[in-house]
Amino acid sequence: MLENFIYISDMIGVITCAISGVLVATRLRMDPFGIIVLAGVTGIGGGTLRDMMMGATPVFWIVDNTYIYVIILTALLSVLWLHRIHRFPAYLLPIFDAFGLAIFTIIGAQKALMLGFSGPVAIVMGCITGVVGGMIRDILSGQIPFVLQKEIYATASILGATLYVLCDYIELGPIFSMAIAMLGTLSLRLCAIYYHLSLPVFSNDREA
Amino acid sequence: MLENFIYISDMIGVITCAISGVLVATRLRMDPFGIIVLAGVTGIGGGTLRDMMMGATPVFWIVDNTYIYVIILTALLSVLWLHRIHRFPAYLLPIFDAFGLAIFTIIGAQKALMLGFSGPVAIVMGCITGVVGGMIRDILSGQIPFVLQKEIYATASILGATLYVLCDYIELGPIFSMAIAMLGTLSLRLCAIYYHLSLPVFSNDREA
Amino acid sequence: MLENFIYISDMIGVITCAISGVLVATRLRMDPFGIIVLAGVTGIGGGTLRDMMMGATPVFWIVDNTYIYVIILTALLSVLWLHRIHRFPAYLLPIFDAFGLAIFTIIGAQKALMLGFSGPVAIVMGCITGVVGGMIRDILSGQIPFVLQKEIYATASILGATLYVLCDYIELGPIFSMAIAMLGTLSLRLCAIYYHLSLPVFSNDREA
Repeated sequence: MLENFIYISDMIGVITCAISGVLVATRLRMDPFGIIVLAGVTGIGGGTLRDMMMGATPVFWIVDNTYIYVIILTALLSVLWLHRIHRFPAYLLPIFDAFGLAIFTIIGAQKALMLGFSGPVAIVMGCITGVVGGMIRDILSGQIPFVLQKEIYATASILGATLYVLCDYIELGPIFSMAIAMLGTLSLRLCAIYYHLSLPVFSNDREA
Repeated sequence: MLENFIYISDMIGVITCAISGVLVATRLRMDPFGIIVLAGVTGIGGGTLRDMMMGATPVFWIVDNTYIYVIILTALLSVLWLHRIHRFPAYLLPIFDAFGLAIFTIIGAQKALMLGFSGPVAIVMGCITGVVGGMIRDILSGQIPFVLQKEIYATASILGATLYVLCDYIELGPIFSMAIAMLGTLSLRLCAIYYHLSLPVFSNDREA
Repeated sequence: MLENFIYISDMIGVITCAISGVLVATRLRMDPFGIIVLAGVTGIGGGTLRDMMMGATPVFWIVDNTYIYVIILTALLSVLWLHRIHRFPAYLLPIFDAFGLAIFTIIGAQKALMLGFSGPVAIVMGCITGVVGGMIRDILSGQIPFVLQKEIYATASILGATLYVLCDYIELGPIFSMAIAMLGTLSLRLCAIYYHLSLPVFSNDREA
């Protein structure tokens, strides 16, 4: 039951991230291959780097090919959808995206703890799983990754991963741990979107 | 015999890709180290990522140092050549390059199948081996990877990898499988160059 | 004793590289997360790629979390420092940086030799450990990596790694080997800074 829930959530995360990759790719007038690549790196890039760093190879989508099919299908359906519908309901994307961030963060932290790594490593791995896919997508599109700039995005991921690790530490059980971590990431991220919150930005202009 | 043929083809692939890296590096007025790095990532970048993802570590060029020597030698000779010859026969490069793409694709798919991975994984690995080197080269040069844009390049790689996996599935034997996959990639890629074919490009301008 | 010296040198290397990441991040007006990420990739990015390529996973900072703490602490203190001090003593940075390059190069080559890899592989691994962190930093900042362009930076790393491998080959003992390699890298790099040396740049403009 719980495993099914995690698996389905993971797939929803992959789908929402893949859609955000498709949107960037079509904006840059990429060809079908470019669209699938951007869908793929956004959907499974973070988890791939996480697995390679932890030595959990072959990486997850080589073991379970469902991820490959889901990404190709998402890319195809998104392109068809964009061709039929005149305006994409753009206001929905950040919400899906926040959900993807939350679930990826938890899955990354969970996998690190299950493999016996320490709490700080689990937080870093949760964060890598959550944000690296979007960073590679931005680099491949010729942009400075937006998570490095000023929206509270990665911070929400760090919060979620930290909550999960703490809940796991006090042995709260997987369902409650996931629920609390999920709520933490989602609420911080959605508040940031709604109230246009940003963290302060540091500049060393004076140095020049 | 067959092994020798594969090995020599692989080296030719590395050399042609390394030359394309050198050409980009000299165009950007890089120093000798930059030239060797761009030759290296173009020549062995795709296979390195493939091996790291599959857990086939240490990666291939750590096990067989010939790759390192071939890349350094190719970089040096190319630079000397470019200094002596007034005009590089630029029309030859895409043909060499198509050959490199074809052989890398096959070698990537082959290695995945030999390690016991599934057909879809072998197709993805063939494609990664074929195109990722050029993608890293483009990113290091400050450009959006050209394979994501509109020439039929990656598509030729996908076709070749798929043909190889299918031939392997019906147990056609390695020589025929390689020949058919090679012909598929080469003919599609060379036709694309000759007739200036592109895949349709999708844009979501209407979304804005 | 020697182990302690290597470990402390490594940490100094991480700190100096992390500071250079912070300086780039603040110049681009990144948020706190972006600052930590740039500090992290500059400080441990090269060693991470080295370990993933050699199959020495989980990578070093997953095994020894001290690296994570050192990077976060360095990022925080640097930001505070930049806010208090009006002008950063910018002339000190290249000197710290040269020290970081020298120690990272040696540690990378050393690890490769200890794992039983060949001399040429150790040179490549030393060089990857020394320069890749800065390359990823530059790419994440939307710039062509400066080591690919015209200062004698990577060349100093290659020299140091080669000296270390040669000293190891003639069994000079770790302390002398490290001292000689360190001197080689440092003196070449500092001379390059002081005398504004560059390697010749190759261009194939005539090709156009």
